[in-house]
Parts: sequence; C-alpha cells; structure tokens
Amino acid sequence: MISKTQAKYIQSLGQKKYRDQEGLFIAEGPKLVKELLQNKNARLEQLYALDEWIDENEKVLSTANAVRINAGDLERISQLKTPNQVVAVFKKFESNAPIAKGKISLVLDGIQDPGNLGTIVRIADWFGVDQIICSTDCADLYNPKVVQATMGSIARVNLFYTDLPMWVKQQARIDIYASMLEGKDVTTMPAMKEGVIIIGNESKGIHKDLAEFANEKITIPKKGEAESLNAAIAAGIILSHLV
Amino acid sequence: MISKTQAKYIQSLGQKKYRDQEGLFIAEGPKLVKELLQNKNARLEQLYALDEWIDENEKVLSTANAVRINAGDLERISQLKTPNQVVAVFKKFESNAPIAKGKISLVLDGIQDPGNLGTIVRIADWFGVDQIICSTDCADLYNPKVVQATMGSIARVNLFYTDLPMWVKQQARIDIYASMLEGKDVTTMPAMKEGVIIIGNESKGIHKDLAEFANEKITIPKKGEAESLNAAIAAGIILSHLV
Repeated sequence: MISKTQAKYIQSLGQKKYRDQEGLFIAEGPKLVKELLQNKNARLEQLYALDEWIDENEKVLSTANAVRINAGDLERISQLKTPNQVVAVFKKFESNAPIAKGKISLVLDGIQDPGNLGTIVRIADWFGVDQIICSTDCADLYNPKVVQATMGSIARVNLFYTDLPMWVKQQARIDIYASMLEGKDVTTMPAMKEGVIIIGNESKGIHKDLAEFANEKITIPKKGEAESLNAAIAAGIILSHLV
Repeated sequence: MISKTQAKYIQSLGQKKYRDQEGLFIAEGPKLVKELLQNKNARLEQLYALDEWIDENEKVLSTANAVRINAGDLERISQLKTPNQVVAVFKKFESNAPIAKGKISLVLDGIQDPGNLGTIVRIADWFGVDQIICSTDCADLYNPKVVQATMGSIARVNLFYTDLPMWVKQQARIDIYASMLEGKDVTTMPAMKEGVIIIGNESKGIHKDLAEFANEKITIPKKGEAESLNAAIAAGIILSHLV
C-alpha cells in the first residue's frame, strides 16, 4: 500500500527538476529492473512491485527495499502507458568528464528525442563504446523514456553533459570525425582505434562552432531518395563501420 | 468548418478496419504532406489545413480538395499529440507481390512496433531498396505512426504483406540472408547485387519455418554488453554493409 505522499513523490521523479534535486531516477518493468539490480554500478533506493514479481525475484532483491503493491498502486506510480509489474527508484550513476585518449568516444550534439538518446546509449554499449559526451540541450539521460530505451545499457556507459566545443578542444592529438550529409564515405574507411565521432541533430546537423574542430567529415552514402536518416540509425551504421 | 460526421469519418481512419474498408490513409504535418503531394504515386483524396498552410502551399495543391479549418477542428481530426497545420487523406498505394530476382529485397518477420516499421521503410529508401515483404503480423503500413515515421518514403517503397515462407520458397536461385544473433560477420561480407535479407522481431527473432530457407546466417558482431539491437538499427547496419 502506498500513501498519497509517496505516490506523489515517485511520480515527481518523472520531472528533471526533482530527479536532479533528489539524485534519483525511475526504472520500470521486469527486464530492465532485473538487469539493473544485477549491475554492480546500480544502487537501488526503493522498489515497488506486485506480489508475483517479488516472489519470483527474491534472490536478486534485498527485501528491505521492496514494497509489495497492488495493480491500482502500480498504475498510480508508473510512468508507462502499460505499467509492468515493477517500478524501481535508483540513485543516479556517477559521471566523470571523459578523456578521449586511448578509446572511442561518441559526441552527441542536440539529440533531443528521448527514444533516440536511449537507443544510442544501447548501440554504444553493443559496440563497446563506453563514453558519450552530450551537449547540454540533449535529452536528459534519466528521463523515463530514455532510461527505458537504454534497456540496461544506462549502467554501463558513462554519459557526460558539457559544453561540447570546449570539451573537444581539450582533447589533444586525436582524430575527430563529424557525421555530415556530405563527407568521406564511412563504409570504406578503416576502423578507428581511438577517436571522437560527432553525431548531430537530424534536422539541424552539427553546430558550426563544434564542426570546425573535426579533422574529417564522414557520411553514410545515400543510394535512394530518403531525405535523411534518424540520428540513432546513423550512429549505429557509423559505429558498425568504425569500431 | 468540419461537421461531426466528417470529423468522425476522418478519425475512423486511425483504425485499420476503416482504412482497409475505404482504401485510404492519413498523413499529417507540413513536411510529410508536402512531400506526398509532390510524389506522382500519391493520390490525394481530401485535405484539411489551417489558412496559413493553404496560403503557403497553393502551388502544390489542387484547391478543389482543400478545406480550410481552424485550430479547434484540426485538434478534432488529428491523430497527433501536437497537431501540425494539416491533415491529409490519401488513397493507399498499389502494392504488388515482388519478385526477388535482380534486386535487393528486405523481408520483415514480425516487426510489430509502428515506429520501427516506419523507420525501416525510410532506411530502405535511403539505401535504394525499393521492396519490402512483410509477414502478416507486422504493423500496418498505414497505421498513422508508421506513416509519420516513414517521412515520405512510404510513397517510394513497395511494401507487400504475405505468407513469408511461401514467398521466399517461390524465389528461385537467389541468396537469402537471415539476420541472427550468431552467424557470419556482416561487416566483412561483400556487397550483394541481388538477394533477400530477412530481419526478425528483436525479442523473438526469425520464425523457424522461415529461417530454414536462408542459405547464410549473418550477424552484427557485438563488442560490448548490450543484449540486443533494435530491429531498425540492425536493418540500417546490415543494409549499409550489404548494399
């Protein structure tokens, strides 16, 4: 059973302001929650679930943090259209200013769609890219839609928000590729060992003051008629050729 | 001004049953509608728009089909959360059973998410793949969410629903690749000139009775930890390597 105040508190974490204030975020659904509970970086604050879920998952759960609720309560605290058994509140992950040297970094300029951002985190994780640097106008990593779209990869990728031109400028002697509508054909380029790949907003592209730091413009060659590719699709294709 | 009956009729096209009955579908928003109006395959049935949109687009519009409406009416007939100036009703495109010979075809098995299906149509169009064969349990191409996600590519790609194992069986002497979690590394394979690429549902994969027709299993090598890739991302990566 959940009190009105508790329900209101959990619901409030759907908003960035309260997530920032509390240092917490919400994850929902059996698959995502279980994956986070099993990840050593994830720190559970509180969990609310139907009996069936708790009974099935006692092993991965410190019962001290688990509250049994009914379907009505679940509906009240869920951010999903179709609530799915469990809502968990986790502490936000620590995030440190990444250094580009020695690995591949993804830089995201103005990726505002939550689904796209979450999908890109998952793609990065698939390709073993473990750091993403975002402009401050990207969607919030802890937006429930982003969290759901990362499918657990949120716990494995260091995502850092900063002033992009400043960050890129600080990275010394490293390849910086910018994904553009015109550039070198990415499908014929050799894999990178270290470097920075910049992906921009699909309608606005990459800001000029960031693009000027790139020493190579790269592109996915178009053979048909579509005007553009979705930013997440572009990220997936580029990483598959360069990693 | 729109009558109650008219509004109800337009709204009804949000449902497959009525779209099938009428042979019509809805497209919304200035960008998509303009692109369809300029496509010779698209046949406009009726268009409802705010004054500002009609005044700006008189050239691409046969005014006989255009109804001026106000913001309140737009809200009543739109399928979007944020209605955007114009709602157009088009005739469905003709769709013919494709022949695999001589080109690359995409086969989609159980792609039920409308956003994924629409994005895949757009990706196919980007790479010049102009035919997609879908299992009957894929999302409906004319679902408003699919239409919006295709971004106009809906008019350039022939998408056909059929019994997939039967269709694939009829295609003689052609390479059939199935995208699986294990298989030949797609990033090292040569481009195809003709052939069939099968993409399955990301959680259920490809049905056994379809996969058995494949003469090559292909995969996108995983370097990190993510459990899977979204079906649209997989389609984009595979086409970028094989087309």
